Amino acid sequence: MSDAWEPQDGPSAAELDAADELAHRRKDFVLDGPDVPADDGDGDGSGGVEGVVYLDGNSLGALPRSVPARLAEVVEREWGRLRIRSWSESGWWSAPERIGDRIAPLVGAAEGQIVVGDSTSVNVFKAVVGAVRLAREEHGEERDEILVDAATFPTDGYVARSAARLTGATVRAVPVSEMAASAGPSTAAVLVNHVDYRTGELHDLAAVTAAVHRAGGRAVWDVCHSAGALPVELDASAADFAVGCTYKYLNGGPGSPAFLYVRREAQGRFDSPLPGWTSHADPFAMADDYVPRDGAARGRVGTPDILSMLALEEALKVWEGVDLAAVRAKSLALTDFFLARVRTHVPPGMLTSLTPEEHRRRGSQVSLLCQGELEGKAESVMSALHARGVVGDFRRPGVLRFGFTPLYTSFADADRAARALADVVLASRREA
Amino acid sequence: MSDAWEPQDGPSAAELDAADELAHRRKDFVLDGPDVPADDGDGDGSGGVEGVVYLDGNSLGALPRSVPARLAEVVEREWGRLRIRSWSESGWWSAPERIGDRIAPLVGAAEGQIVVGDSTSVNVFKAVVGAVRLAREEHGEERDEILVDAATFPTDGYVARSAARLTGATVRAVPVSEMAASAGPSTAAVLVNHVDYRTGELHDLAAVTAAVHRAGGRAVWDVCHSAGALPVELDASAADFAVGCTYKYLNGGPGSPAFLYVRREAQGRFDSPLPGWTSHADPFAMADDYVPRDGAARGRVGTPDILSMLALEEALKVWEGVDLAAVRAKSLALTDFFLARVRTHVPPGMLTSLTPEEHRRRGSQVSLLCQGELEGKAESVMSALHARGVVGDFRRPGVLRFGFTPLYTSFADADRAARALADVVLASRREA
Repeated sequence: MSDAWEPQDGPSAAELDAADELAHRRKDFVLDGPDVPADDGDGDGSGGVEGVVYLDGNSLGALPRSVPARLAEVVEREWGRLRIRSWSESGWWSAPERIGDRIAPLVGAAEGQIVVGDSTSVNVFKAVVGAVRLAREEHGEERDEILVDAATFPTDGYVARSAARLTGATVRAVPVSEMAASAGPSTAAVLVNHVDYRTGELHDLAAVTAAVHRAGGRAVWDVCHSAGALPVELDASAADFAVGCTYKYLNGGPGSPAFLYVRREAQGRFDSPLPGWTSHADPFAMADDYVPRDGAARGRVGTPDILSMLALEEALKVWEGVDLAAVRAKSLALTDFFLARVRTHVPPGMLTSLTPEEHRRRGSQVSLLCQGELEGKAESVMSALHARGVVGDFRRPGVLRFGFTPLYTSFADADRAARALADVVLASRREA
Repeated sequence: MSDAWEPQDGPSAAELDAADELAHRRKDFVLDGPDVPADDGDGDGSGGVEGVVYLDGNSLGALPRSVPARLAEVVEREWGRLRIRSWSESGWWSAPERIGDRIAPLVGAAEGQIVVGDSTSVNVFKAVVGAVRLAREEHGEERDEILVDAATFPTDGYVARSAARLTGATVRAVPVSEMAASAGPSTAAVLVNHVDYRTGELHDLAAVTAAVHRAGGRAVWDVCHSAGALPVELDASAADFAVGCTYKYLNGGPGSPAFLYVRREAQGRFDSPLPGWTSHADPFAMADDYVPRDGAARGRVGTPDILSMLALEEALKVWEGVDLAAVRAKSLALTDFFLARVRTHVPPGMLTSLTPEEHRRRGSQVSLLCQGELEGKAESVMSALHARGVVGDFRRPGVLRFGFTPLYTSFADADRAARALADVVLASRREA
């Protein structure tokens, strides 16, 4: 149904790609489908324009090309040949802090404040309990409320409620727009998603944090949907704790370990609910009493998961020399372009963008709500897109999500996705 | 100094290896050092008798030969080409329970009771809090004591104290020999190491559990040093919870995910302190309220760490067709043989075995305490052994640990290790 498509105003996808200073990064990723040759020789690192358009990097980032060889080396030489010697000789022991320092510049953090390990959920638990304890130490035990982003990713809410139950606090769900006004004298901690996983709305890290601090509370930020997608100014915004995922825009691989940021000022008083031997000041003393290490490493718990962690470390090398301002500019240009294409070609009343128009409130995804004639059809629309090689995902009940990863998504991808979406929607209308 | 060595009574290492029904399993592992050819052609899977003698499988198991190819497939095809489709098409989503079921027969568990994921420490936290809540539900909130193995691996103690603090309980350290008598009307939970990581002592899972149950408490077992080393009868012993490591005798790779066993009878009431979206009854509903899944999957928290998890799954294939009774028999024969060799050749008063003589109290390691002329020299003795290609480890202040992994340790290994140890000890004496 590409004949339904009209010529566009403004620069074409090809013109935008030609002018894109990040375009050359695309070749660092594997973007082919399972049945497509790895490279059609045009140098763009893909099997050609009819390959997969991958707009689900907000769920699972694409494979950086250098990871397989590095992982083979880790397995075959470091584990296979050196075995336990690798804990020192191959740098395994210090990997959680070392990789944390590699993530740090991507989230606006000076070194020594991030440790990698465990899942996002487990790190949210450490951070929320740590924040509650810190606020109580400073302002008294009567601080008994944890405010949680009312639209939070579910795990964060579940974990916050568990943390509340275990620390004698209560949880109140508050829309992020009301968070600053809601923080008060009983607020121990707030837990906020920097970018809403469902709508792609970007929240104001600095403003919310400042309001929470004025109220005497501590702020925990979930940056799963912003780390690697846009500049995250953890230090400059005075965030107390942040937890992020590494398998979305950081391309660490499925279920790769999460990271925990503990602001330097708070580290010495960070009282983790998950103390483990690897965060002990003298781990090999195997002492009966827990004496926590200083610094980011206090966030460690058990033995680090080396295979996943070193795959992540290699994946992070694609960021060398990347300017986050360029990432942000391209992300906004991509989402603007996609939204404009969709608006031009999809009849009104069928798809409504849940993603804010305002740049300062937009993350790096576009979420479209199926309405009117498309109501109840989100899953079948996404299936039809997959069949056309355009991969986004959907979230119940009716949200189509398209993630734009500036390091590897092209304007041609965005163009093809919008065309395919329009085709699917129009076909769906005819069938109805 | 092999000239100090006398002929032995009893069968030789070569005779024992020739009669070993598990000997052919050795070829399934990579046992070479970094600078040794992968195979010298003698079919034993090693670079020859002068290669490494690896007796540290109780710290990090050797690499199973089939893992690198499987991991390459996971990375290159499942992540690289299929990306998010692999959550369903490649079986990623169900991996935690599926791999749990693969571990189940190795620890005497019927299927549906084990889930893989997170670190040992994090699982100990889930299990101890879960056990305390269960005991209180059954016997009232006045159950306020957690008994912890006085010689526990440190993390278990730290985590138990954190669990106690968060649940309003207290921790009392009790030697395992006194655990049964110590459990009483205030006991909520006990946390016991099945095999002592330092001495190699094996404790009586069934007897301690029965005593704890008579007192109305719940038993959590740390089976890190027994899973894969000897038969662990979780179901038959009525253990309530068990947590195990997969990178020791299960050879899953450095820091590979741990496992959590929750006895079927307790699953419906298992109230985890770490609820996450992946253990929700309807994970993709993204509901605000946590409704836990039934079964082993209730122990899940965050997104599973797929690379490490699928490496572990492949590693577990070496157990196909293995009889655990044969594993146990060989383990005891190896440790008997090694202890006898050491006793014959090391002068009295220098090395004392901390590992029990009695088979029913022995795990699969030998721990030797440096005493007399060797006092303060454990680290240098172990360094000298490493220089001779014999890899064990040491634990402060003076313990040499030698782990025997029945699937790949040969009697020739044990023989060479004992000879090298005698040489090092005698050389150390001459230097003194």
